[in-house]
Amino acid sequence: MKRKLRMGMVGGGRGAFIGGVHRRAANLDGNIELVAGAFSSDPKKSKLSGKDFHLDSSRVYGSYQEMAEKEKALPEDQRIDFVTIVVQNYLHFDVAKTFLRAGFNVICDKPVTYDLAQARELRKIINKTKKVFALTHNYTGYPMVKLAKEMVKKGELGEIIKVVCEYPQGYAITALTGEDKAISNWRANPEIAGISNCMGDIGTHAENLVHYITGLEIDRLCADLSVNIPGRNLDDDGNVLVRFKGGARGIIYASQVSNGDENDLNIRVYGTKKSIEWHQEEPNDLIVKDARAPRQVWRRGNDYVTGQAAENTRIPFGHPEGFIEAFANVYNAASVAIADEVAGKYPRKSGYDFPDIKDGIIGMAFIETVVKSSNSKEKWVKFPSIPK
Amino acid sequence: MKRKLRMGMVGGGRGAFIGGVHRRAANLDGNIELVAGAFSSDPKKSKLSGKDFHLDSSRVYGSYQEMAEKEKALPEDQRIDFVTIVVQNYLHFDVAKTFLRAGFNVICDKPVTYDLAQARELRKIINKTKKVFALTHNYTGYPMVKLAKEMVKKGELGEIIKVVCEYPQGYAITALTGEDKAISNWRANPEIAGISNCMGDIGTHAENLVHYITGLEIDRLCADLSVNIPGRNLDDDGNVLVRFKGGARGIIYASQVSNGDENDLNIRVYGTKKSIEWHQEEPNDLIVKDARAPRQVWRRGNDYVTGQAAENTRIPFGHPEGFIEAFANVYNAASVAIADEVAGKYPRKSGYDFPDIKDGIIGMAFIETVVKSSNSKEKWVKFPSIPK
Amino acid sequence: MKRKLRMGMVGGGRGAFIGGVHRRAANLDGNIELVAGAFSSDPKKSKLSGKDFHLDSSRVYGSYQEMAEKEKALPEDQRIDFVTIVVQNYLHFDVAKTFLRAGFNVICDKPVTYDLAQARELRKIINKTKKVFALTHNYTGYPMVKLAKEMVKKGELGEIIKVVCEYPQGYAITALTGEDKAISNWRANPEIAGISNCMGDIGTHAENLVHYITGLEIDRLCADLSVNIPGRNLDDDGNVLVRFKGGARGIIYASQVSNGDENDLNIRVYGTKKSIEWHQEEPNDLIVKDARAPRQVWRRGNDYVTGQAAENTRIPFGHPEGFIEAFANVYNAASVAIADEVAGKYPRKSGYDFPDIKDGIIGMAFIETVVKSSNSKEKWVKFPSIPK
Amino acid sequence: MKRKLRMGMVGGGRGAFIGGVHRRAANLDGNIELVAGAFSSDPKKSKLSGKDFHLDSSRVYGSYQEMAEKEKALPEDQRIDFVTIVVQNYLHFDVAKTFLRAGFNVICDKPVTYDLAQARELRKIINKTKKVFALTHNYTGYPMVKLAKEMVKKGELGEIIKVVCEYPQGYAITALTGEDKAISNWRANPEIAGISNCMGDIGTHAENLVHYITGLEIDRLCADLSVNIPGRNLDDDGNVLVRFKGGARGIIYASQVSNGDENDLNIRVYGTKKSIEWHQEEPNDLIVKDARAPRQVWRRGNDYVTGQAAENTRIPFGHPEGFIEAFANVYNAASVAIADEVAGKYPRKSGYDFPDIKDGIIGMAFIETVVKSSNSKEKWVKFPSIPK
Repeated sequence: MKRKLRMGMVGGGRGAFIGGVHRRAANLDGNIELVAGAFSSDPKKSKLSGKDFHLDSSRVYGSYQEMAEKEKALPEDQRIDFVTIVVQNYLHFDVAKTFLRAGFNVICDKPVTYDLAQARELRKIINKTKKVFALTHNYTGYPMVKLAKEMVKKGELGEIIKVVCEYPQGYAITALTGEDKAISNWRANPEIAGISNCMGDIGTHAENLVHYITGLEIDRLCADLSVNIPGRNLDDDGNVLVRFKGGARGIIYASQVSNGDENDLNIRVYGTKKSIEWHQEEPNDLIVKDARAPRQVWRRGNDYVTGQAAENTRIPFGHPEGFIEAFANVYNAASVAIADEVAGKYPRKSGYDFPDIKDGIIGMAFIETVVKSSNSKEKWVKFPSIPK
Repeated sequence: MKRKLRMGMVGGGRGAFIGGVHRRAANLDGNIELVAGAFSSDPKKSKLSGKDFHLDSSRVYGSYQEMAEKEKALPEDQRIDFVTIVVQNYLHFDVAKTFLRAGFNVICDKPVTYDLAQARELRKIINKTKKVFALTHNYTGYPMVKLAKEMVKKGELGEIIKVVCEYPQGYAITALTGEDKAISNWRANPEIAGISNCMGDIGTHAENLVHYITGLEIDRLCADLSVNIPGRNLDDDGNVLVRFKGGARGIIYASQVSNGDENDLNIRVYGTKKSIEWHQEEPNDLIVKDARAPRQVWRRGNDYVTGQAAENTRIPFGHPEGFIEAFANVYNAASVAIADEVAGKYPRKSGYDFPDIKDGIIGMAFIETVVKSSNSKEKWVKFPSIPK
Repeated sequence: MKRKLRMGMVGGGRGAFIGGVHRRAANLDGNIELVAGAFSSDPKKSKLSGKDFHLDSSRVYGSYQEMAEKEKALPEDQRIDFVTIVVQNYLHFDVAKTFLRAGFNVICDKPVTYDLAQARELRKIINKTKKVFALTHNYTGYPMVKLAKEMVKKGELGEIIKVVCEYPQGYAITALTGEDKAISNWRANPEIAGISNCMGDIGTHAENLVHYITGLEIDRLCADLSVNIPGRNLDDDGNVLVRFKGGARGIIYASQVSNGDENDLNIRVYGTKKSIEWHQEEPNDLIVKDARAPRQVWRRGNDYVTGQAAENTRIPFGHPEGFIEAFANVYNAASVAIADEVAGKYPRKSGYDFPDIKDGIIGMAFIETVVKSSNSKEKWVKFPSIPK
Repeated sequence: MKRKLRMGMVGGGRGAFIGGVHRRAANLDGNIELVAGAFSSDPKKSKLSGKDFHLDSSRVYGSYQEMAEKEKALPEDQRIDFVTIVVQNYLHFDVAKTFLRAGFNVICDKPVTYDLAQARELRKIINKTKKVFALTHNYTGYPMVKLAKEMVKKGELGEIIKVVCEYPQGYAITALTGEDKAISNWRANPEIAGISNCMGDIGTHAENLVHYITGLEIDRLCADLSVNIPGRNLDDDGNVLVRFKGGARGIIYASQVSNGDENDLNIRVYGTKKSIEWHQEEPNDLIVKDARAPRQVWRRGNDYVTGQAAENTRIPFGHPEGFIEAFANVYNAASVAIADEVAGKYPRKSGYDFPDIKDGIIGMAFIETVVKSSNSKEKWVKFPSIPK
């Protein structure tokens, strides 16, 4: 691309955590420029945020509908190339639909929609509009996660026997004890977040990470969700036994009340030839284990790390890369597709390496199945079929 | 005790791993002397082992029955004070019964018996004979495990919300792939081991560790055991969701086919005030976590580590203690009771700190419940009631 | 600042590692825009790099002299606010002088100049021109380094007894063995790099980190530098004993031939009340040690981390920040000063938190003193006096 | 050996830390029996200790002279096979001499004697009496240290470029601050300990570890010792630059005032082909590094760990061994020689694997050279020549 891609943003104004991450991910490599936004449902706040981000005030909108309309009306060499959606879950579908139908590519935060039905509907719209739709399951952007995926794909692990993926957080512990009375997390509001809080917010990241690395598909599962924070209806902790197609077993769990844990997403994939282990809080290492040989630590940026892991690396070994860099890798992968779309060459045959609507549908199916299972007296609940 | 306790051993001859651990545990502090044994069902092998251990040949027996009888006939100041049982599971009950009825105290390897019924029966015999019966759930011997228990007991964790206890081993991976054709593990033989291999051998250690530290009792559970090694009938991997009485949730899992893991027993107990984390492979540390404060690493042997943890410590901080030392702590705790029994003062009111028949019964109940659950279509299987 | 700062760059074209880091550090938060550059002494290469970075070709220059002149001639609302210098060491002085005298603020890579005399001369020019001069000792940008500094400053460590700062790299090992014949590292060329390779390139980072955190000043030192790579004249490894003013002792060492180490800068500061330990490869943790209490791990992003550490944090605990984020913190701190300068308010009384010419002078003094010591038969060589 | 070796002990009575370690090391494998001792210079205390250790009171002596004499007078099948010396440094020589001349083998704690002259003299006595003399540089007993040694010996590291060996302890910090007024450490008394405290007590362990693993001999060194604890004359911290014969460089340091460190002996050996790193506080791992390949962690007890490392391993991988087990390995190695001596077959041609008088002489030479260097204005002090 000879020019920077032009990005718009819906949501993510002042004080929003994830909006700032998306902007930094877009900024990092100097190939994307934020030029427009509807940063808040409150037009005044949206304007103030626009100033923070050094935008021309004419490109700061009071609503996403206005933004889609007015951007569409701009000359082709000014209007945004894509929009990033960082609003609350229940709005994802409407915003995405609006921009896709107005002819814009979309990068959307997860979970993809409010429920599975919306996700399936969104897939149809994407297919019809032929625009790029990327979902920011950002943990797949880490180089060592990509290395893990390639090791599995090349058969270096042999047959996969077991997968354990944990995602304990503990930030909600003070909400549980009542110390932090001010916390009113919209993720715990079923009208905004959907039928799950913890499994929807971070359980889906764990599920997506398992799928991304191993390619395994869930056949059925058995879940035990719990609500520990007084006054809430949605889960803040969930433990899931999994049986994958082909016979591998697994455990996936997520928690917001694991006091003292921070963002400790980690995965272990056990194979007949080798096993791998990765921890999000030490993301530059991939541990490779085998009963027959010394344990190995593969470290990002070395010559022996090749392929997608190497291509998604910016700086040398020993110079830690982190969360924002991984997030930026999702943006970069999506940018390739968006640049193709802008150039009329989308989709390229060799494919792209970013999470898309299929990942979104699987994620929503995961949420619905774990909630169903948790309420069921039967041990195993079948995972719904996913379109190719 | 003004003299060394005299120990006999049944099983544990040449080449047996766990026999050597028991002997070293007994040797370590110089307060126990191995003086007699029936080390093998093959009298010749038993004799050879007796020579290895520098025993008087008159005290090396061809069978445990002979040993019980002849030791009983020895003068009081020569006969053994207790017997250690390190035979295969299916023999535990018979050997223990024989020695208890012959008037000897018993230290027995786990699992306590072949099945739950035997364990309940054994309890009656112990109660009737009023002899000491100690079960070597050795992981409870680690000082930092004792510290963890005390922290929970003192309420420092607040209310316990969740417990995760993992016990992955990978040593059986070459049996799974057929590389290691020679392996014929008796633990996989249901006639010798009982109805479970992996959960019986190490799953019970995990369950016992959870119970020892937290005091929590399992209300019901949901298990998914699997047999991965071709030609076997018993589990080599098992994942269990747990609901404890009082509401805490848990995950307990054990595996022999987690390729590249060694003996990675670890536990995390999440409380409203604090959480603790302990790894058997780094046993001198206890990690204490809380969302409100810097993470702490309590290290064995420091002045700030007091109580049972301090009393079970031999050498200063920074000088690592290991598996044998922890095992020796179980022996020392049992020795206190045995010395009391020898002196006619057993049991003392203040109690003792070693695993006993109640732990054994809970362990057998755990095995039977996870196997039942694994074969069940119902989600939750109730845990049987345990005598006080 | 209501607008983005406009940045120019000298050096750092295609393929240069550190140029890319500087650009990403500037991009990250969306408050700086690269608008001009002389990226190579080869004008063609400079132009190509300018295209890579999406610059207007009129702002891509063939030489730094041309750049200074033409940027100066631009209207105030177009010309750059500051220049970043990422050329080879021997050019730092000339480029910095040129831009300072042309009225531009400067961010310069380290070591500040070719030798100490130049650094002292540069200081005079800075003082005369009253422009901002920032030196990218980027490791001081890490939040947990800032926390360490504050802990020392508040007296939480008590009196400092000892400091150990290590900086082992191993990337040059294949140059040593002759495997990597292609490596012709300009840092090993005394005409380009100055009188030291390893101590100049990374030893100065270690020295600066010690000074930043502890505030201690070196009184005298004793160095043992060595040249291990055949055919070279400059050091690739150096070990230094240090005596600080006030009595604390220290060890500072740096290496490029510590095979298998990557970028393992680490520091331990031992105090009478507490000690701290920080590892650049795990930068989100600060270890706090004391013989009287459990070891602590302070983790970036938590509420209990306040002050400059908190202000230099972008994302929550458990979401790792890395090298680029730390580098960006130096840029942000310098940007505050640059914005002040642009607004005619430089310098503000409360000061700024970025390395400056004084750090540069100390660094050059360190290089000259360790080289002198290494060639000396006397044990201790006095550290030169540094202007306030 | 068909019988247990009979051990005597001089020193190490009630309350002495290192005496208990020696006894447990001797007890562990059941092949050595403590039968006699002069545990204190106070005969009453000696008797009480003898009771603690379950000794026959006739074998508990009031002085080491008495013990040597009376044991010598016992029938051959009763008298001790060797004596363990765990008295204060200044007595080592006299006690060792007495027992050697009385015909007994000796295991002696380090440092070997009060000064270098005594060590050289002791060597003559050993050579003349032809008895076994083992020195408990116990850290060489760790299996992974033995693996490290073998890797170096086999040339797997290539040429050694650099060695860094650290031994920071922090236990004396409260003596430094005056909090712990009761501490009167005999190691700080030059009449008892010799000319060095910290370097003599633990610096020699570091030096010995370097020598054991690498075989390198020190050519010259440059030391900076310091006394930080008020009222003392002997060092509590020391930093040493080392040049080895053959050209490798090194750093060796030891400290008792590194607040919060415990017993953190660690070593890094950097070679052209590979490097190794070992930490005493995590002794079951050996880290193998190389710029060309993933980092490796070799873990004790696996099939891929062979040779002396395997032979000095008691229990399987993942079951941690610690300090006492390593100490016991020194006892076992010495026991082989002692059994040979008892059988009239000492020394065997293939040699033994325990530290001996040569290690003791090197250690005393190290102490004297670092003290000399620390007091010198010259940079480098030559290491004395050591007899083969």
